[in-house]
Amino acid sequence: MTFQDLAEKLKGGQKPIIAVVAPTGENIYSALKEVEKEGICTFLLVGEEDQIEKECSLFDLNQYAVLSSGNPADDAVDAVLQGKAHVLMKGKVDTSVFMKAVLKRKDELMKSALLSHILVAETAEGKLLGVTDGGMVIDPDLQQKAAITQNAIDVFNNLGVINPKAAVLTAMERVNPSIPASLDAALLSKMAERGQISGGIVDGPLAIDLALSKRACEIKGLKGPVQGDADILVVPDMNTGNIFGKSLILCAGFPSGGMIAGASFPIIMLSRADQASEKKNSIILALAAAGV
Amino acid sequence: MTFQDLAEKLKGGQKPIIAVVAPTGENIYSALKEVEKEGICTFLLVGEEDQIEKECSLFDLNQYAVLSSGNPADDAVDAVLQGKAHVLMKGKVDTSVFMKAVLKRKDELMKSALLSHILVAETAEGKLLGVTDGGMVIDPDLQQKAAITQNAIDVFNNLGVINPKAAVLTAMERVNPSIPASLDAALLSKMAERGQISGGIVDGPLAIDLALSKRACEIKGLKGPVQGDADILVVPDMNTGNIFGKSLILCAGFPSGGMIAGASFPIIMLSRADQASEKKNSIILALAAAGV
Repeated sequence: MTFQDLAEKLKGGQKPIIAVVAPTGENIYSALKEVEKEGICTFLLVGEEDQIEKECSLFDLNQYAVLSSGNPADDAVDAVLQGKAHVLMKGKVDTSVFMKAVLKRKDELMKSALLSHILVAETAEGKLLGVTDGGMVIDPDLQQKAAITQNAIDVFNNLGVINPKAAVLTAMERVNPSIPASLDAALLSKMAERGQISGGIVDGPLAIDLALSKRACEIKGLKGPVQGDADILVVPDMNTGNIFGKSLILCAGFPSGGMIAGASFPIIMLSRADQASEKKNSIILALAAAGV
Repeated sequence: MTFQDLAEKLKGGQKPIIAVVAPTGENIYSALKEVEKEGICTFLLVGEEDQIEKECSLFDLNQYAVLSSGNPADDAVDAVLQGKAHVLMKGKVDTSVFMKAVLKRKDELMKSALLSHILVAETAEGKLLGVTDGGMVIDPDLQQKAAITQNAIDVFNNLGVINPKAAVLTAMERVNPSIPASLDAALLSKMAERGQISGGIVDGPLAIDLALSKRACEIKGLKGPVQGDADILVVPDMNTGNIFGKSLILCAGFPSGGMIAGASFPIIMLSRADQASEKKNSIILALAAAGV
């Protein structure tokens, strides 16, 4: 499955609505414009009405519904909670203001125990590979890793992957008391066996070659349900996820997109440094993960 | 500079000698055979004389010097310390036995404060990129990170890179007290300014896009001597280095090799799961780093 496959699948159904908080500037509109071409969603543009109308015409975007607002973050979250939109997207508003508006309504919108970031990269073989968490939780403990894993599995279920295979990565496949992440990895796979993580298969600790390469598993004689065929890679901490995830984009050249999971709706936060294709893929990913 | 460039450079000089501890089995001999074709080194084969002679002829390897030994690890370390070889390579002997033989002679052979692993990958643009440490030091403290960085700079100096640029990676470029690795990164770059790390330029904390992509640095307005042009990537811990480093091989398809630095001679430890090209590149790397 590729990003284009996800986009094609979205064309069949009801068009989800993305509530965009403070859409302003070329950076935001160029991303919306790219997605508009696919005809897979519609937008609710939340912010200063005059400016939005001016920029829609300046950037040649279709006329979408506008929610006039002086507090676009709060009002957009409210709109999604009321079912008026299915995905929340940060525009030109401070990340702290945006996240405060989300966390203010935590009790209503949290589906999971925490919000986590998932990067999805399309491999050279045309498979979607999730990496989590390289963007939200700095140094997750076991419970938080369980939630991160569950969030990723839920996203993959919504993308149409039945029983996705999650590999919990460390430097090696042995449970080693001097590598705490290897203990967490073993515990996570047992938690999944006990149904404390559901909807997917979890195994760890695994080195990345054992998660991705059947050849490496054969040489090392390691058997298991995830080995060599992982859909999701759960990393020990944010530094690892960020460095490894970005290397898939920078060094491997894999098309990719990212989103925040854990709420009852996908959250999109694009970065200025994202390539145009990454912005588009992030939106496609969130639309598919919304499961409308 | 590529691995092939390194091999070409080696052809000009004196041929370094690799002491191979317990060379036995197809796995070891196929690697030696690949390097033999390049004509860039010679071997001192340390182990059971009869078996070595039998296998040399079985695997069609030239007749190299043999050091008959019942304790090949100890005797090979001794040979390198006596100047009879320039590089130490682990053959079919337990890693613990091999490392014990090295550490037993620590006082004589340590050039640095500690041994560290460096992976060197050849990017699509034909540049050698170091990643350290993904294989030796599980969770290095600041002093250990300084030694890891110094070891990598020394290796690159020997490869012929004058003043290599080392980026100390974390998830972001800001010094953030809740991300301890970002504090270490800032401290390492100041230590290099003070001459506590020498022979190269060190900057951090840097996210990987800021270490490798000039475009990302321009968009984020970040200037500095390493930005977008790093030769060496220093990672926060072994899990990160291992996952990220192997992804350069598995996902980016970069040719790569690895060695252990920090002793007065390079140490090669091949893994069964290494591809033939990785084995060959590791030997070329160690030969070039030996600076004979």
